[in-house]
Amino acid sequence: MSIINDKTIKPFIVMEVLERALELEKEGKSIIHMEIGEPDFPTPKKIVDAGTRSLQNGNTHYTDSRGTIELRSSISGYYNKNYGLDVTPGQVLVTMGVSPALLLVLSSLVESPGDEVVLGNPCYPCYANFIRYLGGVPRFISTREENGFQLKAGEIRKVIGPGTKAILVNSPANPMGTIIPREDLREICGLGVPVISDEIYHGLVYGEKAHTSLEFTEETYVLNGFSKLFAMTGWRLGYIIMPEKRLRKMQILQQNFFISPNSFVQKAGVCALEEDHPEVEKMIALYDERRRFLLKRLPELGLDYAVEPKGAFYIFVKADHIDDNSYRLAFNILEEAGVALTPGIDFGDRGEGHLRISYANSIENLREGTDRLESYLIKRGKLE
Amino acid sequence: MSIINDKTIKPFIVMEVLERALELEKEGKSIIHMEIGEPDFPTPKKIVDAGTRSLQNGNTHYTDSRGTIELRSSISGYYNKNYGLDVTPGQVLVTMGVSPALLLVLSSLVESPGDEVVLGNPCYPCYANFIRYLGGVPRFISTREENGFQLKAGEIRKVIGPGTKAILVNSPANPMGTIIPREDLREICGLGVPVISDEIYHGLVYGEKAHTSLEFTEETYVLNGFSKLFAMTGWRLGYIIMPEKRLRKMQILQQNFFISPNSFVQKAGVCALEEDHPEVEKMIALYDERRRFLLKRLPELGLDYAVEPKGAFYIFVKADHIDDNSYRLAFNILEEAGVALTPGIDFGDRGEGHLRISYANSIENLREGTDRLESYLIKRGKLE
Repeated sequence: MSIINDKTIKPFIVMEVLERALELEKEGKSIIHMEIGEPDFPTPKKIVDAGTRSLQNGNTHYTDSRGTIELRSSISGYYNKNYGLDVTPGQVLVTMGVSPALLLVLSSLVESPGDEVVLGNPCYPCYANFIRYLGGVPRFISTREENGFQLKAGEIRKVIGPGTKAILVNSPANPMGTIIPREDLREICGLGVPVISDEIYHGLVYGEKAHTSLEFTEETYVLNGFSKLFAMTGWRLGYIIMPEKRLRKMQILQQNFFISPNSFVQKAGVCALEEDHPEVEKMIALYDERRRFLLKRLPELGLDYAVEPKGAFYIFVKADHIDDNSYRLAFNILEEAGVALTPGIDFGDRGEGHLRISYANSIENLREGTDRLESYLIKRGKLE
Repeated sequence: MSIINDKTIKPFIVMEVLERALELEKEGKSIIHMEIGEPDFPTPKKIVDAGTRSLQNGNTHYTDSRGTIELRSSISGYYNKNYGLDVTPGQVLVTMGVSPALLLVLSSLVESPGDEVVLGNPCYPCYANFIRYLGGVPRFISTREENGFQLKAGEIRKVIGPGTKAILVNSPANPMGTIIPREDLREICGLGVPVISDEIYHGLVYGEKAHTSLEFTEETYVLNGFSKLFAMTGWRLGYIIMPEKRLRKMQILQQNFFISPNSFVQKAGVCALEEDHPEVEKMIALYDERRRFLLKRLPELGLDYAVEPKGAFYIFVKADHIDDNSYRLAFNILEEAGVALTPGIDFGDRGEGHLRISYANSIENLREGTDRLESYLIKRGKLE
């Protein structure tokens, strides 16, 4: 059942901000983009060349619906090497991005109307849309700022019931940039409910390592892909790692909905995971430089955070002392200061009073953007 | 609600045939593939080069979630030129293949449990899977052999009720290869129910032109893509043409489920539609040569059809005089004769007693395959 209306599948507010920003730019206004969750870097050269070679070699036909055995082996090997696991290619299903991966996983778990999926609030806005689309109920837990807005096992335990089909975690997280501490993730994985772990920001970490749910439980569905770490958003390539016995059901869905992932793009995915990419190291260093710049600069503007964000490319700051309506605030900043930011309400009511600041933009632009914010805040009498 | 079990989302039998065929080949047996619905040709060179250039030029980021305006303009222009229409780019949504396109369209039309979609039996097996996945009911009409197993407006009218959300047509059709006559399509489009028209085999026609539902009604959702005509299955690129006022809802679903289609693949799509490709003409000529070979050869084997198939690359023949269980028959032919065919039951109970023969294989292989079938039938005493 797919009741699509304002109560189920919502557009993202960030897209509204972006659309308005593009309009203003058309009118000749200068806008600094700190709203977008997309790497501002090109895909590393070796990966582009691997995709090119595969295309030129005629790999333009369907592949195995699960993905090529070569890429599934690379993915299991990558997780085994990075996290000391023993994942097999038989546990891997390749998808056209993490979003379709989530659709497949939730389609296989949310089976009856009212089935619940536990997730934190704030969180990535699509999560709840997927769950509602499937007739399920997102069981939100308002997370605490002092926990980096991440879920704690004790809070989850209180809401688990017979209708609870999964717990959805995201670390490093959008919009918070925070990482679930190892011990917290271990406890969540021990609750006896399947854990869906969105690990798309793994690798984009600064001084701390993110852990995978696969370290702690077999009943888990890991979602990951190539978009963020390898700057491959436009390639549409992701994957699911799951218990091998769950794969057949998901494969049948994949055959129906997608036939198979793109053939030559999969070859580029093998190159991404198997070879060294100096560009990736450079990107991580640049993200960290920007992050450290903002961590110093934002508090000077009165924009604070309780837990230092150590992953992804977002900082989620308190802004209710400026305006408790984050939607109104973000659009006012856009119009008045020429800075595009994402209102916290886009991530759930618990995100209200906050702004998400993306540092997927150059340090020069971040400097200019924060200077503009400073002038704006002074003008509004919110900063001296 | 996504109740996935044997009654809702089924695997395709054709995949089982293919898997067994591959096993037999591993054992050293020779198999002639006449089961697969995928062009046996490479993608035309100019298209491959356009994709390559786009990739090398760094088009590796998200695009507009509807697809690039360039490709949407090419698609509307292509339909306007080929069918004398006035479609606008604002009516076009680019998808990662026709299957996700169908998921989006049906998700927006099947809104309440029990909503019905009318479709012919036999038909492409996934259609019903999508409808059931969404909590809807496939309202099958057993079509008549003398109509090429295509729907007639008079038969549809009898089953239309308040819960009827759409009529799904497919011309040229899988598995029948037949084309809906112009007048029949016009009548179906005049029934006052939205028509979903799967036009993926348009262009692959031999001596007759297929018509689009857009010629006869505005309340239609055309599904098409690049896989079949341009031999681009592995690229995963398709599109929907719909009333402009329906696009926003579909775009929101696309943002949630897919973000945007692959960026550089879209550029290849522009090249496919905008430029001339001598390879495409050659492919059509070769398909037609194979088709004519089979149309002569199959009746010699006692494998008959009532209406000459004039599109796609399939011939759907009666085989119940050999065995009324098409599943058993197809696997027996595979094991005994080394010829892979698709059992008619894969396309619905109305397909029982039939076999789908694909000519997406060389004429030499088709000759060898039909010779093997001849020996098999003589051995079984079904041919003299």
